[in-house]
Amino acid sequence: MPHILDGKKIAQNLKDKLKIEIEEIKIKSNRVPGLAVIQVGNVAASSVYVKAKTKAAKEVGIDVIDHHLDESINQSDLINLINQLNNNNDVNGILVQLPLPETINEEVILNSIVPGKDADGFHPVNVGKLSISQTNDENLMIPCTPYGCLLLLKELNIKLAGKNAVVIGRSNIVGKPMAQLLLKESCTVTTVHSKTVNIESICKNADILVAAIGKPEFVNKDWVKEGAIVIDVGINRINVNEEKSKLVGDVLFNEVKNIASAITPVPGGVGPMTIACLLRNTTIAFKNL
Amino acid sequence: MPHILDGKKIAQNLKDKLKIEIEEIKIKSNRVPGLAVIQVGNVAASSVYVKAKTKAAKEVGIDVIDHHLDESINQSDLINLINQLNNNNDVNGILVQLPLPETINEEVILNSIVPGKDADGFHPVNVGKLSISQTNDENLMIPCTPYGCLLLLKELNIKLAGKNAVVIGRSNIVGKPMAQLLLKESCTVTTVHSKTVNIESICKNADILVAAIGKPEFVNKDWVKEGAIVIDVGINRINVNEEKSKLVGDVLFNEVKNIASAITPVPGGVGPMTIACLLRNTTIAFKNL
Repeated sequence: MPHILDGKKIAQNLKDKLKIEIEEIKIKSNRVPGLAVIQVGNVAASSVYVKAKTKAAKEVGIDVIDHHLDESINQSDLINLINQLNNNNDVNGILVQLPLPETINEEVILNSIVPGKDADGFHPVNVGKLSISQTNDENLMIPCTPYGCLLLLKELNIKLAGKNAVVIGRSNIVGKPMAQLLLKESCTVTTVHSKTVNIESICKNADILVAAIGKPEFVNKDWVKEGAIVIDVGINRINVNEEKSKLVGDVLFNEVKNIASAITPVPGGVGPMTIACLLRNTTIAFKNL
Repeated sequence: MPHILDGKKIAQNLKDKLKIEIEEIKIKSNRVPGLAVIQVGNVAASSVYVKAKTKAAKEVGIDVIDHHLDESINQSDLINLINQLNNNNDVNGILVQLPLPETINEEVILNSIVPGKDADGFHPVNVGKLSISQTNDENLMIPCTPYGCLLLLKELNIKLAGKNAVVIGRSNIVGKPMAQLLLKESCTVTTVHSKTVNIESICKNADILVAAIGKPEFVNKDWVKEGAIVIDVGINRINVNEEKSKLVGDVLFNEVKNIASAITPVPGGVGPMTIACLLRNTTIAFKNL
């Protein structure tokens, strides 16, 4: 049986460390990091994520400022709110839950957050710094999901340098920053995607395989080398029958687990790490002030 | 014989187009793009590059403002100069020729240039935008050498999507932005480097091989697949005998040319493209105002 990477437990360890750090910050400065969470409208999945993030932030002692806005809000009003938060000294991190209504330009909104408060690490300045920096610095604002994946890999206490890493997917939120992080760990990094020829055989060569494509159970055992480490970023809801649904990853877990040396489950793998890394970014934003 | 990619000629075509564009700008606005070139000290290679860049800029009608500074200049005086140029409406692009003296922090200097005037495309904002944007946009400030390589590839009029591209080297100036550009052209992109295991066999799989390692004639025929396209970024001066030296690339040209379907020579390949792309960035900076 492979090593099942317990994201829930590893995320809890990170949260425990952050909690202690925030207690020390409070003693020292009589302040705690503040996170503003903006949700527009009532997309069900967004409500679930916002609730989980808010709960986790409060657990570690971060002050949460909730802004649940009607989906009819216009773009300039949203920007005005972000500008207020940019100038509010009690707010260290600003999170805009995606997706936004179609009437609002996501890129404009994300770029209106000052880089120092960009809790998601999506602002061009933070994306640029991530690419330029020679190491995966402690004070960088790094997109939460790929950084969570890296922390899972680091739990294995193996040498990452020289490993053949393949990232499936080239999104700005996961694939691209994941490739940057692995490159700085001195992995040999290949990014594959929908236009890739022979995707299966390239993946089959990977020592480390990160799947971030959003296709349920797409990666089966034929894609995976014996002994590979498999990180599954996918969170897909599929129907079990007419009444029941369940969450599955991008990897066919029950098949691949028999080949991999280590693998993340869905749920309970990357998901909890994403949330813990959001709290990390908020705390870093406080410390970077 | 392979297609020898004539960088000199292709760069000249780009410069001819820019010249026409700048003439039109002049007629329309009674202004021309301005490029400030800063050289600190007298490193011989820097003087050669600055001279070539200045000459090329003038050829296409760009106004060049030269700042040749003594190597004893301190960091804050250099920043003051950059701030003046940042605020000077006649200056659209600012180029700081690297390397700088050891007493000056290169990163601090490069970050002090406003992103809109960052003619080299090295500022975190421009690096971030290059990563985030879905296409290799006409109005992005893209690092000159990798963009020059992409333009050479485009001269071949082949379909880039799905091609297996391998970039040797992971510098901020070439390797990393090159990987981003090729990924946006929908290549499958692998970055290899000094820590890569089996580097030869990975390169041997490449449809497109970009060598940017700075090791003279390092890539020989055993690294190259029959019919591959080889782009040589290296510019290395080696001694022929006690009196004579010559420039060679990172690729053993005379061997690899017998295998490749297309290859760039050194000199006369990537080098002239780098300079032409600097002029492109300066013109874009003017148009983005």
